[in-house]
Amino acid sequence: MDDAVRFGVVGLGTQGTLYARLVSQGRAPALRLAAVCGSNPASRATDRHSALAAELGVPLFTDYTALLESGEVDAVVITTPHYEHPAFAIEALRRGVHTLLEKPAGVYTLQVERMLAAGAEHPDATLAMMFNQRANPLYSDLKRAIDSGLFGELRHSSWIITSWWRPDAYYASSPWRATWGGEGGGVLVNQAPHQLDLWQWLCGAPERVFARAQFGFRRDIPVEDEVNAVVDFGHGATGHFMTGTNDLVGTDRLELLFDRGKVLVEGSSRITTWLLNDDERTIARTMSPEDAAKAPSGALDLSTFWSSDSRDYASRWGEQHAAVLQNFGEHVLDGTPLLASGLDGLAQVKLANAMHLSAWTGRDVDLAHLDATQYLAELNSRIAAEGRYPTRE
Amino acid sequence: MDDAVRFGVVGLGTQGTLYARLVSQGRAPALRLAAVCGSNPASRATDRHSALAAELGVPLFTDYTALLESGEVDAVVITTPHYEHPAFAIEALRRGVHTLLEKPAGVYTLQVERMLAAGAEHPDATLAMMFNQRANPLYSDLKRAIDSGLFGELRHSSWIITSWWRPDAYYASSPWRATWGGEGGGVLVNQAPHQLDLWQWLCGAPERVFARAQFGFRRDIPVEDEVNAVVDFGHGATGHFMTGTNDLVGTDRLELLFDRGKVLVEGSSRITTWLLNDDERTIARTMSPEDAAKAPSGALDLSTFWSSDSRDYASRWGEQHAAVLQNFGEHVLDGTPLLASGLDGLAQVKLANAMHLSAWTGRDVDLAHLDATQYLAELNSRIAAEGRYPTRE
Repeated sequence: MDDAVRFGVVGLGTQGTLYARLVSQGRAPALRLAAVCGSNPASRATDRHSALAAELGVPLFTDYTALLESGEVDAVVITTPHYEHPAFAIEALRRGVHTLLEKPAGVYTLQVERMLAAGAEHPDATLAMMFNQRANPLYSDLKRAIDSGLFGELRHSSWIITSWWRPDAYYASSPWRATWGGEGGGVLVNQAPHQLDLWQWLCGAPERVFARAQFGFRRDIPVEDEVNAVVDFGHGATGHFMTGTNDLVGTDRLELLFDRGKVLVEGSSRITTWLLNDDERTIARTMSPEDAAKAPSGALDLSTFWSSDSRDYASRWGEQHAAVLQNFGEHVLDGTPLLASGLDGLAQVKLANAMHLSAWTGRDVDLAHLDATQYLAELNSRIAAEGRYPTRE
Repeated sequence: MDDAVRFGVVGLGTQGTLYARLVSQGRAPALRLAAVCGSNPASRATDRHSALAAELGVPLFTDYTALLESGEVDAVVITTPHYEHPAFAIEALRRGVHTLLEKPAGVYTLQVERMLAAGAEHPDATLAMMFNQRANPLYSDLKRAIDSGLFGELRHSSWIITSWWRPDAYYASSPWRATWGGEGGGVLVNQAPHQLDLWQWLCGAPERVFARAQFGFRRDIPVEDEVNAVVDFGHGATGHFMTGTNDLVGTDRLELLFDRGKVLVEGSSRITTWLLNDDERTIARTMSPEDAAKAPSGALDLSTFWSSDSRDYASRWGEQHAAVLQNFGEHVLDGTPLLASGLDGLAQVKLANAMHLSAWTGRDVDLAHLDATQYLAELNSRIAAEGRYPTRE
């Protein structure tokens, strides 16, 4: 008897092909590749799709509904265009097919909420997110350390993530790229979702978001290519998030300040921690006036108050994705907790939407009461102005 | 004949004593120390003041007006409490005495504007600011490079400056510290003015400011001990400024992104520059589709597009201050351009006020139309609530 979950891959672009190969190679043994499917129900099989199916020894479906109703798959991963994610997931969930969804969960909050409502009507079908960077050992170790209370409560976090420079020819490579109607936005929708997710995973969900965004700042695109946001995580903790796609040199620098320590992550590969001997508040309270008088000039050696450590992590391409695929399969088989659920997908889309909305309106946005209808109206006005794709509902 | 400017030091705390000694030691030869003066006209000379005057061989004044009218000084440096800076400067300027003012130029915009108006009525009297970090060779070299056009137009800047940890005993050391009525604010008024000034000097004045500030976040003080701001420099260029006084480890990291390069300043002592071979826009436009396809995965070696260099600067304590004192003296003697004028002092106070006002109101503040009356009213309401000092006008 085969214990593995029978797994179908929907959408056979770069990501879908990667996932099909990883499962076929046994790198996520809780899953067994059972079928592959082009993402557009109306499209005929391409030679590339046929060759892939033949190579991997599984049937190729050209009709998504036929795949879902074939009885050949217990679960699918969906790697269609962003806008189609929720609709494709709803089709699977309502047929009881477990669903792993490529990021982002969708483009706008309303459609992702609709998907979660459909999922709630089919509680036996899993809805999970491919937030593969949660499986990056650096971030999973850090998440564990934070959750253990080692560093105490968060005070501040700043993330500058601009290490994804994109030239004009990248945007020209597909007509939907960097459009409101085809892709749903720029760096917040395409490049930054992983970091938006990781940030909330590590720091908690922001309560308020104020963002400045530049649209077509240094590229001939209508969507945002640079974003600066300051958020309020509640309890006084604040954060700053900066991203953009026009920095050739690129920065990836995450700083987290806690009551009992500090963490610096550089290039998502090197982590430095400073663990204080005591709560900083206690150190500050109990310092003598004599020592305090030395602090402003730098005459006091503060390094006696902490122990510091640095560590480099290596990450092999595909390892993170394989780990998420395996976690998804294990969850279906035995209830192993998911690395990232549909709710995490919603939280990421809401944060990106809040940044857009704040930048469009010039106002501080209350994330818990994000007006998803207003967001869609603003998005549709941009889709209409672009004039290349239909508006959404 | 003595060519040097006869110089009086007003306020004999840490800074005033430093300046008196630097001039007395001949480290600013355009100035000659002629007198010292306690800053409080009502106070009698302390033993420490008398000893200092005797040591430096100059008369000690206990009455500021008497000093100004003594005919003994052509110029003064004012190192009184922050709130008193503009009033002391006005007394000097209206008597034609050249004035160098310790930072900040004042606490609130209205009082600094009043001082500048008084200065305008006495154009022969110089009004200069002690923004000594403009004389830090690292920053003056960087300013020169930026002004030469080497890096092209600014796109973004982020400064995290938290390397001034202060324990409770520091705040307890003087009753006025970290109060609205006695000091006028927290980190924005006491620690950060130099960086606020340098930032505007290097990047230009922001047009809009949105800030989140925490008041008494991790100290028992009513004023701000942590601030996060995102600014709009105009022409699409944006910035982020984060400061606070509760980070034991401390960060001082300034990043500047330009059309033709990037600059990173760490610890105000190490600078790394990346100078692009061409305008980034041109590099992005002319890249082939083949190379562009390699960019997202990191398969394209981008480092061929720049030359990078790092340099460490050493700065001896007092050198920067001596340079500003000398520049002030030379300006009085022969019109050498000032390193920092009264207008620069106003710009710094306005930026700090805009951050307070944005944090208080939750709104994005238009810096060119900062409502200085509203700012003072908000400040006075906090002074009144504190109940320890009179409100201001």
